[in-house]
Amino acid sequence: MTLDDSSLQKFGFIKRETLGSVNIDPLQTGGLLTDPAKKALVEWGDGYSVCDFCGGVLDQIKKPPIYDFIHQVLPEFLGCDEARVTNGARESKFVVMHSLGKAGDWIVLDGLAHYSSYVAAERAGLNIKVVPHSGSPEYSLDPEGYGRAIEEVTKESGKPPALALITYPDGSYGNLPDARKIASVCHEYGVPLLLNGAYAVGRMPVSAKEIGADFIVGSGHKSMSASGPIGVLGVSEAYAPVVFRKSKHSKVKEVELLGCTARGATVMTLIASFPDVVKRVRNWDPEVENARRFSAMLEDMGFIQNGQKPHSHDLMFFEAPRFFEISEKVKNGRYFLYRELKERNIHGIKSGLTKYFKLSTFGLGREKIEFVADAFEEILKKYENV
Amino acid sequence: MTLDDSSLQKFGFIKRETLGSVNIDPLQTGGLLTDPAKKALVEWGDGYSVCDFCGGVLDQIKKPPIYDFIHQVLPEFLGCDEARVTNGARESKFVVMHSLGKAGDWIVLDGLAHYSSYVAAERAGLNIKVVPHSGSPEYSLDPEGYGRAIEEVTKESGKPPALALITYPDGSYGNLPDARKIASVCHEYGVPLLLNGAYAVGRMPVSAKEIGADFIVGSGHKSMSASGPIGVLGVSEAYAPVVFRKSKHSKVKEVELLGCTARGATVMTLIASFPDVVKRVRNWDPEVENARRFSAMLEDMGFIQNGQKPHSHDLMFFEAPRFFEISEKVKNGRYFLYRELKERNIHGIKSGLTKYFKLSTFGLGREKIEFVADAFEEILKKYENV
Repeated sequence: MTLDDSSLQKFGFIKRETLGSVNIDPLQTGGLLTDPAKKALVEWGDGYSVCDFCGGVLDQIKKPPIYDFIHQVLPEFLGCDEARVTNGARESKFVVMHSLGKAGDWIVLDGLAHYSSYVAAERAGLNIKVVPHSGSPEYSLDPEGYGRAIEEVTKESGKPPALALITYPDGSYGNLPDARKIASVCHEYGVPLLLNGAYAVGRMPVSAKEIGADFIVGSGHKSMSASGPIGVLGVSEAYAPVVFRKSKHSKVKEVELLGCTARGATVMTLIASFPDVVKRVRNWDPEVENARRFSAMLEDMGFIQNGQKPHSHDLMFFEAPRFFEISEKVKNGRYFLYRELKERNIHGIKSGLTKYFKLSTFGLGREKIEFVADAFEEILKKYENV
Repeated sequence: MTLDDSSLQKFGFIKRETLGSVNIDPLQTGGLLTDPAKKALVEWGDGYSVCDFCGGVLDQIKKPPIYDFIHQVLPEFLGCDEARVTNGARESKFVVMHSLGKAGDWIVLDGLAHYSSYVAAERAGLNIKVVPHSGSPEYSLDPEGYGRAIEEVTKESGKPPALALITYPDGSYGNLPDARKIASVCHEYGVPLLLNGAYAVGRMPVSAKEIGADFIVGSGHKSMSASGPIGVLGVSEAYAPVVFRKSKHSKVKEVELLGCTARGATVMTLIASFPDVVKRVRNWDPEVENARRFSAMLEDMGFIQNGQKPHSHDLMFFEAPRFFEISEKVKNGRYFLYRELKERNIHGIKSGLTKYFKLSTFGLGREKIEFVADAFEEILKKYENV
């Protein structure tokens, strides 16, 4: 193809269709920008803007106060000794896996781990042992499963796994496993634990130290109201020299970070939203109440919430047998739910889903939660004779 | 520390001091956002905004037209068979190095390679063989040096290097090596070549196919007026299946991209600026003229431009013996040049430098180029009796 005006006209500025919707997409509810972050985007949007006064290392930049953010407040916020910003939670996980494991080593993952944990392990050349969950409807994890998985790896490969990982909470059911117990089980075997808190850090209180995790991973664009991609990584003192090892070619640069990571507006939106994020984390209890309230309303309508009950996170998974029934009977039924929600200005349940879906109530507040629940009820009613 | 109001007050929205300056920082002149990109930032700033209608793979998203951008126009623009967006040029380089090399393998780099090429190779466990440059003042590269380096690696390690890399142009002197000849030398030995075009792609015409490079790397935030971090990667048909191999755990996800890369406003600003970037690349000749004009004006004042002459890129390196002399005599002299330029609203020469510095005239236009040259002359005059 030629890059002429007609082939280029579809690019340039493009409108975002879903702006202004009530958003219940678990991927997005914790990533909506705060007002300070929106201002920061415009102020720091230019490429390499944060490097105006850089001496060579991103996390050492004093103006803007990236150093203070990364070295003072972020470790406190994550409950860890050393912290960095990365290009995302998955990149944080790869940094740890690639630092701790050699190709052919093993990693133990929970059965609800995000796909990116698998892919990061695969990229690092690690073999994967999965700790099974209990299956439907609760999908719970037995901390002792970590002990059994570690023993299996040791038996099969002659040495313990390089790392264990727990997803806290998982991205399908929003379950919060007993991470403290899991850390203690892993440590009995001398295996370090990475806590994947992509849906926790920035939404709810979580501390690597309180849990006993050696590594904690968070996502700026998923749960810290930052413009992505950006992640955070917290590491304990014991592992910091390994994970943040310096280059032999370029003395100040950290190898796993390729010298610099979030070198732009991403870190400035993370910083811009941070005071509000700290406040909302302190205000987590009402979020849990809202989630439970929403779950109860939907269960009253005949939907079935899977995962932990009572639920302790805004991310929830529902079985919707009645929606599925309707979808089998109406025209283009697979998309009926998406269409009905779109008409009501609600976005976030994947187009094509009716039988099972996940959603998030994070940050909606009681009014919008009722609005969404009412929409579900209206839709049921509209199709009651189908 | 406690995360109380007083410790948090320095975060939130922060002003950017240098906004509105005449910017001559080579890192930044090609990354200034276009107006469509500024609008796109606000429109798509929320975390995971591009995932509104994602079926699981970033580069397959039809709305917004990320698929069309990555699979139709980007390969055409880069002159390659397959393209992807990454988290930056360094991340693109690591993707290729990590795909092609095993730990202990070798890579051949030019002596002017960016530090991130070294660090990426180190992260991938590769040994590095450097093709020497000619030293001051021209720092030129002999393409035959690649042949010699490849032979040395083969002799020492028993097999040819996994990859060769050429920086086009380098980030110190803005030299454009004879990449076509280098590609041909590398291919004689069966070694694939990566062209690091972080300062080329988006500024000047460059095509992997015309050069004969197997891989081409560009930087969105450095040279494509995108908000960072974002990079592009172009790969030839022969290597695409290796570099973009799919995960065995998650069938649609590409391992080296950890599933997804520029999952946010970064890709939307790249797309927003793209039509303008295509136009400015076509308008490269006047940029070269401007650079040469600026170089001539500075040489007339007694500065010495290092690197290729006549110069063919906006990034230029100057020796400034007179500025150095002044800096040794005036109070706080190390910072005198920075202070004088700041007073004249010019930003981009690193604070503390006087004897040698690099700068870029990209996008300044004749008027601002004269303004900067006049500032240099004024400063010389001001201190003529020192």
